[in-house]
Amino acid sequence: MVTQAVQIAPAMISWLDLFGTAVFAASGALAAAHRQQTLVTFSFFALITGVGGGTVRDLLIGAPVFWVQDWRFAATCLVTAGLVWVTPRTVWNARALDWFDAVGIAIYAVFGTWKSLTLGVPLLPAMMMGVITACVGRIIRDVLAGEPSILLKPEIYVTAAALASGLFGLFIYLSMPVLPAAGISALAGFALRAMAIWKGWAIPAYRG
Amino acid sequence: MVTQAVQIAPAMISWLDLFGTAVFAASGALAAAHRQQTLVTFSFFALITGVGGGTVRDLLIGAPVFWVQDWRFAATCLVTAGLVWVTPRTVWNARALDWFDAVGIAIYAVFGTWKSLTLGVPLLPAMMMGVITACVGRIIRDVLAGEPSILLKPEIYVTAAALASGLFGLFIYLSMPVLPAAGISALAGFALRAMAIWKGWAIPAYRG
Amino acid sequence: MVTQAVQIAPAMISWLDLFGTAVFAASGALAAAHRQQTLVTFSFFALITGVGGGTVRDLLIGAPVFWVQDWRFAATCLVTAGLVWVTPRTVWNARALDWFDAVGIAIYAVFGTWKSLTLGVPLLPAMMMGVITACVGRIIRDVLAGEPSILLKPEIYVTAAALASGLFGLFIYLSMPVLPAAGISALAGFALRAMAIWKGWAIPAYRG
Repeated sequence: MVTQAVQIAPAMISWLDLFGTAVFAASGALAAAHRQQTLVTFSFFALITGVGGGTVRDLLIGAPVFWVQDWRFAATCLVTAGLVWVTPRTVWNARALDWFDAVGIAIYAVFGTWKSLTLGVPLLPAMMMGVITACVGRIIRDVLAGEPSILLKPEIYVTAAALASGLFGLFIYLSMPVLPAAGISALAGFALRAMAIWKGWAIPAYRG
Repeated sequence: MVTQAVQIAPAMISWLDLFGTAVFAASGALAAAHRQQTLVTFSFFALITGVGGGTVRDLLIGAPVFWVQDWRFAATCLVTAGLVWVTPRTVWNARALDWFDAVGIAIYAVFGTWKSLTLGVPLLPAMMMGVITACVGRIIRDVLAGEPSILLKPEIYVTAAALASGLFGLFIYLSMPVLPAAGISALAGFALRAMAIWKGWAIPAYRG
Repeated sequence: MVTQAVQIAPAMISWLDLFGTAVFAASGALAAAHRQQTLVTFSFFALITGVGGGTVRDLLIGAPVFWVQDWRFAATCLVTAGLVWVTPRTVWNARALDWFDAVGIAIYAVFGTWKSLTLGVPLLPAMMMGVITACVGRIIRDVLAGEPSILLKPEIYVTAAALASGLFGLFIYLSMPVLPAAGISALAGFALRAMAIWKGWAIPAYRG
């Protein structure tokens, strides 16, 4: 019954998805820009960050990989990489990008959970698919760039995705209608990440 | 015929699998503890180490990913991460964990080969699936933690998994019944890993 | 119609594929030799470099993973690793290997695009599958070895694969017969990579 509760307008979903891809792709291309990389690396980083998390999710849940079926996602990543490449670096404000990225995390955490539930994945793994969709592209990019992964920092990042995914899964389990459930969950995840960007919120580390 | 030779009680397999997952998840969570990480990182590391190898195996052999279908595996990893988190570090004995991990390697090397054979994978790739099941979760965790991978150390680790997988594949090829074949192979892999932990056994490096 | 235009003799393809696997596997085993690793690491690196890119491609396009179905690929990687292991290092000429690797890149970039098109992948993602087939095995190996990825160097490497894949996709789109399209594209990719090896060609980095 969880499955039936989560059908919504596919066209809206598709545009939201392209928007999220573009935001993440821009963050990937900017990471390449900070490392003074070439256009090829810009494109690779834009793709990995833009579609990496959703790719791992689709492989895990056994769905056809979205961007292999629909060329608009790859095109979005490449165009974004090109736009970042031709733009002087002074135009980009690291803080502004963090805010875009925060929007992407919130959207994708909910979207990944929703897509997994529609395909019959049980609740707990579906929540995890939301976190994977939101965070794994960034994690793969960190590894390829030889940087300490966001996973190893106390900064609230994965946690914000987990909040959004967890709330959405809970709301659907409690039979809340999909749109309000998605809106509230995404807002909560965004708000938590916003506090990390704005106030430097972090979560406590293990002290043994 | 190899396929038919390897059917055994699914319930026993399932519990053995949950036990192996918990052991590996504990080793992942402890790796996070040694790095003074947060509970979120504990959970991520527990999941990656606990189910990472089996996930790669299932993707490669085209099986539904086990922990996406059955929520008990993810729950086991999260509960294990939580237990490690609330336990003072002095309780954990690094050596004790190595021994648990050695049990996990031996079980998973045999289990991964067995599962692949039941799905019709040819003998040589099936043996490799055993090694992948036993070792890839640990390798991914090493990469995410920014540590030199176990793959680059002369210490016997992957080799023990290869012994267990190779023997099991050979025994099945020679039509030995599954349970003794699995028992002997797992014991041999465990014994070899035990010598590495106990006596520091290693294999020779290339000298060119 | 793109799909029908790209059927060619499967036996030839299969041997070409085994040859490409051996070349890449040798490059992986040599990377292990340079690090004074063990035979187990030689085998792992040979496998990852030899079949890694094609594995990611097959997972993304939803094809059965080639080397899991056909044991000859894994055998080729293991035998290659063994041959490199027993050979004194002085026999290997780093330059010679770069040339073999360049042949592998050109063949695999075209092959990956071709295989994806035959399975109905749209043109743009199919071109990307060519690049992934040619480069991802090397990228994974770099990450496991804890080395800066080829992705982060201005050296022309991924770019040569992109040229071969892009040209082949374009030619097929323009309804050129497959064999000349494949030959010209592979030669162009090889020539570009050759200039990088021979003359040190690189592409410009972002200056902001």
